[in-house]
Amino acid sequence: MAEIGAEVTRHAVGDRVGVGCMVNSCRECENCRAGQEQYCLNGNTGTYTSVDRDGTITQGGYSTHIVVDEDFVLRVSEAIPYEKAAPLLCAGITTYSPLAHWNAGPGKKVAVVGMGGLGHMAVKIAAAMGAEVTVLSQTLSKKDDGLAFGGGDYHATSDPATFEALRNTFDLIINTVSAPIDMAAHLGLLRLDGTLVSVGAPPEPLPVPVFALFGNRRSFAGSGIGGIAETQEMLDFCAERGIAPEVEVIGADQVNEAYERVLRSDVRYRFVIDIDTLR
Amino acid sequence: MAEIGAEVTRHAVGDRVGVGCMVNSCRECENCRAGQEQYCLNGNTGTYTSVDRDGTITQGGYSTHIVVDEDFVLRVSEAIPYEKAAPLLCAGITTYSPLAHWNAGPGKKVAVVGMGGLGHMAVKIAAAMGAEVTVLSQTLSKKDDGLAFGGGDYHATSDPATFEALRNTFDLIINTVSAPIDMAAHLGLLRLDGTLVSVGAPPEPLPVPVFALFGNRRSFAGSGIGGIAETQEMLDFCAERGIAPEVEVIGADQVNEAYERVLRSDVRYRFVIDIDTLR
Repeated sequence: MAEIGAEVTRHAVGDRVGVGCMVNSCRECENCRAGQEQYCLNGNTGTYTSVDRDGTITQGGYSTHIVVDEDFVLRVSEAIPYEKAAPLLCAGITTYSPLAHWNAGPGKKVAVVGMGGLGHMAVKIAAAMGAEVTVLSQTLSKKDDGLAFGGGDYHATSDPATFEALRNTFDLIINTVSAPIDMAAHLGLLRLDGTLVSVGAPPEPLPVPVFALFGNRRSFAGSGIGGIAETQEMLDFCAERGIAPEVEVIGADQVNEAYERVLRSDVRYRFVIDIDTLR
Repeated sequence: MAEIGAEVTRHAVGDRVGVGCMVNSCRECENCRAGQEQYCLNGNTGTYTSVDRDGTITQGGYSTHIVVDEDFVLRVSEAIPYEKAAPLLCAGITTYSPLAHWNAGPGKKVAVVGMGGLGHMAVKIAAAMGAEVTVLSQTLSKKDDGLAFGGGDYHATSDPATFEALRNTFDLIINTVSAPIDMAAHLGLLRLDGTLVSVGAPPEPLPVPVFALFGNRRSFAGSGIGGIAETQEMLDFCAERGIAPEVEVIGADQVNEAYERVLRSDVRYRFVIDIDTLR
């Protein structure tokens, strides 16, 4: 924290703080009042190119400084290096929130679809919550990582036998894949009252065979980041449990190369830009 | 009950009983053990043209007598005439089960999509459970009925203003329409953590815009009939509350005419065949 306004009480200069994907909300609708500012009925203010309440356009975080309302600033424990805190404020909360909401924990079987930036955090957090975690990735190429991150099991979705072997198994599936997936096959993996939660989405509607929802009274849900209180809870949880994303820190001059590598899925598991290289 | 086997203990000759859409299940899988025989992992035995556990084919209920395992026979209170009990064992339990599972009750806003055989029961049962019920029907032609059945409000889905006026409103939507519906529009009616449950389904996959699930952390679920214990609970609930379907009793010689009228949606709200006319 470099500087604070005269009326700021929640933070002090010198505090270790971070800002996530959301910098404001209406604070008046029923969702904001319920602490679910991410679902603000008047639209939350995104950190990047959103129109803020005062009419200004938000400028994002690729900068040495950012001015943010104190209520949307998170405390970052000494236990979390800044380069690890950054992805927690996006991939961390995006996976923590549905895992917490749908009660991942001891006795629950959780599958994570996709082992990228979001997926690897889902595996680490679900395992730390005490759930039995299975990774479902297109291939087995990241299997060693998946097991090291806390996965008890790892299967390839490119192998049809996976969907036979794991039918009616999971209480919760966190789908981190933004491309369309075979919904009949994936929903079939849910046991009684299980839920498949997508945290990524293809631009076009996903064809859902409704009959696949009838079996086991399954649900298909969506979830977006998390509220501010929950984001703080997630940061504290990760600090306590020693959970952090795997990151590759790059300089600002490497962003084009990093972008190409992201397109090739050649990143384990998040690039973080060292903003000091902008100075 | 006309006759019982030597080992039958749950029912006696002369009892008022009924049989629903399911006459057996494996009784061993985790769903059967949980009293959710309708979701039997080895496949429940349907009353109509299913292969039963002993290899015989079930013959349905269009007959003067039916032989059924005692565990799948329901007690019907004197308060429920047989012609009203019949649709309860299908439309009644199909709507009661999701309403009970997703906690329809005081303080909950429930919408029912479609005002046919299933929908009119959903309205009556949800209202009896204490929920605030809104009917969403294609037109307002059945509005008087909907309000009489317990609906507090009634809107036409053919009017786009409906979807504007009711945005972010419902905790639960019971979709009784088997044809494809506009999922973005209908999901948009759900408030925070709301669920749209389909109890009917089109044969082809339904296109679901995943972004519509992100807002308000919405869910899209399916539900099929109910377990045997829950079916008994539903019958007892309806007997106590004086809830019954609206039926038109026909003779066996009128089935072709009735079928044509069903196709024209010209039935309020279920045809029941008087099997005595078969004798």
